[in-house]
Amino acid sequence: MSEFVTAVESKSVSITLAKKMLEAAEAKGKELGMPFSIAIVDKAGNLKAFTAQDGAPILSIDIAQNKAFSAAAYNRATHEWYDRLKDDPPLLHGIVHTERLVIFGGGYPIHLDGECIGGIGVSGGHYTHDMKVCEAGLAVLEELKVTEA
Amino acid sequence: MSEFVTAVESKSVSITLAKKMLEAAEAKGKELGMPFSIAIVDKAGNLKAFTAQDGAPILSIDIAQNKAFSAAAYNRATHEWYDRLKDDPPLLHGIVHTERLVIFGGGYPIHLDGECIGGIGVSGGHYTHDMKVCEAGLAVLEELKVTEA
Amino acid sequence: MSEFVTAVESKSVSITLAKKMLEAAEAKGKELGMPFSIAIVDKAGNLKAFTAQDGAPILSIDIAQNKAFSAAAYNRATHEWYDRLKDDPPLLHGIVHTERLVIFGGGYPIHLDGECIGGIGVSGGHYTHDMKVCEAGLAVLEELKVTEA
Amino acid sequence: MSEFVTAVESKSVSITLAKKMLEAAEAKGKELGMPFSIAIVDKAGNLKAFTAQDGAPILSIDIAQNKAFSAAAYNRATHEWYDRLKDDPPLLHGIVHTERLVIFGGGYPIHLDGECIGGIGVSGGHYTHDMKVCEAGLAVLEELKVTEA
Repeated sequence: MSEFVTAVESKSVSITLAKKMLEAAEAKGKELGMPFSIAIVDKAGNLKAFTAQDGAPILSIDIAQNKAFSAAAYNRATHEWYDRLKDDPPLLHGIVHTERLVIFGGGYPIHLDGECIGGIGVSGGHYTHDMKVCEAGLAVLEELKVTEA
Repeated sequence: MSEFVTAVESKSVSITLAKKMLEAAEAKGKELGMPFSIAIVDKAGNLKAFTAQDGAPILSIDIAQNKAFSAAAYNRATHEWYDRLKDDPPLLHGIVHTERLVIFGGGYPIHLDGECIGGIGVSGGHYTHDMKVCEAGLAVLEELKVTEA
Repeated sequence: MSEFVTAVESKSVSITLAKKMLEAAEAKGKELGMPFSIAIVDKAGNLKAFTAQDGAPILSIDIAQNKAFSAAAYNRATHEWYDRLKDDPPLLHGIVHTERLVIFGGGYPIHLDGECIGGIGVSGGHYTHDMKVCEAGLAVLEELKVTEA
Repeated sequence: MSEFVTAVESKSVSITLAKKMLEAAEAKGKELGMPFSIAIVDKAGNLKAFTAQDGAPILSIDIAQNKAFSAAAYNRATHEWYDRLKDDPPLLHGIVHTERLVIFGGGYPIHLDGECIGGIGVSGGHYTHDMKVCEAGLAVLEELKVTEA
């Protein structure tokens, strides 16, 4: 007999963690010497923290948020999409039209103990740059583990 | 003969100032003991910096951004609208439907030397609370003046 | 110790320049014998001046504005996108879905002293025609330099 | 027996007239000393000509276009709506939510020989100012009649 489940528990990135990740990502962006927009969203894909550096392209403001949303909303890094689409023409020509879905690099889910608790999205450079900035933000989680251990 | 004006110069809030204002506003929010969404936009109304405290209502995320946008896009604090509308029925029933326009408190233009350089918007409490949080953010500009003097 | 930067200064195309560019572009359009929509946007991508010639396709009205927006919002001519996308499949299948982003010719940033101060976008013909009309508008800036010199 | 009607003829404002009206409206705006956004749309409500003076509020860009659209799309000046709504609660609370419909002054249909051929919309001041700017644009049609007579 299946148990009656009343509620589903979940964890979502706190503002404290979000800001720490944002700062680490911003520092990486400055190191790369390009102005980026950086967004952190919670588990539900809603905006939690955001900054656009001076001179970041206007288009990057929405793209960064959409990347973070895509990553959290599907629990998949945005750069992982294309390999899954490229030999599946209906998806390649279809799912790319999904509102707010970004299929190129620069968006990552935020994982804590194997659970998706949010997303980070970056835009402003080529997506290979954007990915580096995201990764610097995500490194904060690794440092937390070391500190806790 | 009038001179040919090629370009219009303007100033917009820097990310450095935006983050400093955000921090001051966040501190006020904690003092009030309620979770707020706080948005800073540039002169053109584009998002520059944003945080949503843990537990901030989902609706507050967009309202804060719309308040900041409204304030920058019309160079008017959002709480100043109602007095101008209340005895002007066509506006009271009409202009309130303008996309992204908020006509209750919690959005202020950011002024530097008398010029609008962006907007701050806060949502999460009653608008009287939201206004207090905005004002704490704007106080940073007064402190800068003292420091410069 | 780095200086605290309060505001970022920028220049945006004046209405005087925008109208002069629009007229030059319209004249080129008439020379080509096709009806065009022509849009000038400011640095933030907001519409500054626009005309649609009699008989311009209805679709061209929005496309012209989106081209001008794209050019200003990324500081890149719209015809320069495809070469950067064609060997980068995730972008080719992905970034083209960005709202308002146009990746074919007919949108140019407006540069003054090396700074992007807005954008011009044209639609109505093949994009090779649209580009010629844009270029006629941009030629106004060269003439200004000669006059100033 | 009713005749089979193959097509409906209509007239729409030409770009030549639209620009002449725009210029007259701009001159009135300068006289009033405030920066306005001014839009002319064709009979179908599509944008025909537009300018935003330097310093016009960002919100005025869309409101001016919506006023011109409202006027052409219903063949009614926007300031005529409120009197028809005020004693009809379902409309007063309902129709005002119609997308792009503006119910306060600053939008007029453009009439030629009693036929609606487009609309003019102005935003930037109080709607009483906006109406004056529209009227200056519409005066061009009266002058044309005198010239033709």
